[in-house]
Amino acid sequence: MITEKITRGARPLILITNDDGINARGIKSLAEYLMPLGDVVVVAPDGARSGQSAAITVKEPLRMAMVENREGYRAYKTTGTPVDCIKLALNVLFADRPDLIVSGINHGSNSGVSVIYSGTMGAVFEGIVQGVPSIGFSLCSFDSDADFSICRNVVQELCLRAIEKGMPDNMGLNVNIPAVECLEGVKVCRAARGRWTAEYDSRIDPMGRPYYWLTGYFDNAEPDATDTDEYVMSHNYASVVPVTPDRSLSEIDPRIVEWMAL
Amino acid sequence: MITEKITRGARPLILITNDDGINARGIKSLAEYLMPLGDVVVVAPDGARSGQSAAITVKEPLRMAMVENREGYRAYKTTGTPVDCIKLALNVLFADRPDLIVSGINHGSNSGVSVIYSGTMGAVFEGIVQGVPSIGFSLCSFDSDADFSICRNVVQELCLRAIEKGMPDNMGLNVNIPAVECLEGVKVCRAARGRWTAEYDSRIDPMGRPYYWLTGYFDNAEPDATDTDEYVMSHNYASVVPVTPDRSLSEIDPRIVEWMAL
Repeated sequence: MITEKITRGARPLILITNDDGINARGIKSLAEYLMPLGDVVVVAPDGARSGQSAAITVKEPLRMAMVENREGYRAYKTTGTPVDCIKLALNVLFADRPDLIVSGINHGSNSGVSVIYSGTMGAVFEGIVQGVPSIGFSLCSFDSDADFSICRNVVQELCLRAIEKGMPDNMGLNVNIPAVECLEGVKVCRAARGRWTAEYDSRIDPMGRPYYWLTGYFDNAEPDATDTDEYVMSHNYASVVPVTPDRSLSEIDPRIVEWMAL
Repeated sequence: MITEKITRGARPLILITNDDGINARGIKSLAEYLMPLGDVVVVAPDGARSGQSAAITVKEPLRMAMVENREGYRAYKTTGTPVDCIKLALNVLFADRPDLIVSGINHGSNSGVSVIYSGTMGAVFEGIVQGVPSIGFSLCSFDSDADFSICRNVVQELCLRAIEKGMPDNMGLNVNIPAVECLEGVKVCRAARGRWTAEYDSRIDPMGRPYYWLTGYFDNAEPDATDTDEYVMSHNYASVVPVTPDRSLSEIDPRIVEWMAL
């Protein structure tokens, strides 16, 4: 049993998770960049949970174990999803609310519609629902040995701002950083609309039975729009997309009132 | 290999999935209610996938197998999530686009913030992204033997409307039906804000190690609001919440422009 609950000390309390697992290079880099800003607590899946969206574990119990404890840095691994990690941290581990929840740094882009499937961003949506300022970071490289140092300044500047100013109600950030030598800067934008196409590689196993690998490519439905994350990243800017966990259309959309009246 | 692709015949083509699995009573009821409206194709998980949100399977290949084929009704089970089912159906099974995607009928409510975690609604968001009119239905009873007949009229009326009129761009519906003797009617509303609290039941296993069951209750942050799904259901109406897969805040929210400028 976790008996000693985590309390907030003199410095800001920062909760970190990801969907690539606690041993991924991205989360280690993230923790390193955030330790100058506050006390860091990592609660992350014990292995890869890519594509887990906001999934929660409902049919099995979860496990959680401390894996590291040193000055200003504690780390716990769990058997759950990224959302499970946030829920376990806030319900079981923490006596005080953290000042900030940060997810990532993801190995690979979460721009465009990928935000829907992303476990990294699932944790961010959970953080927003829980009322904690929450930011997800992704580096647009799937290389497990990727150099995350291009992310350092963006991570530190946005997280410092979120700790000092808080975040607007019901809003978090999805930050995607192109894997380039030199960033031009940071731009606030929205997610490009589109969808993944040609999504399966169909194969036959040695027993003659079919199986299907998810693959495909993102078909950007608005390649000419200049206010999308895809556009700003293609111009070497980090994209900052304000996101919301709300799934309802704002207020009652007049289109649906008309639709129902037809 | 699935060699013969599904084409649209004279009647509307309706794709059905769920997150309780292909043998759940809810999906069998849904198929029964929709067969008068068109040709039904069920592509559903081979077992329970509750709480899977919009999760996709990225690290393992998927399997899909036909389990039933009769006039106006075909059924396939997959090893994937609800979103995987929609993707497999549209990419591998279907030569033509379906006229409608319907998910459910879920055993249990997907009102309030539950829409975020729901596998039933994950499939609906995928359908919307794919450009197909998409509706999720849930009956607010977790009883596996629940009587779904209270849902019949609501399901048939809304699905007929969606087939005949289509749906507004980038919009789907999350329909929750209270488990009551008699429905007062149907109301368009929005999801109640709030969050789940007291979420874990912590236990010790026979080896002395802790484990954690997800539990808790929904804490409605706006119990007095009369335009929420929680409110209308408590008054014996089915709630119809227009939903969007967009996670970006609409356009560029002035609050974030100010936040970035601080």
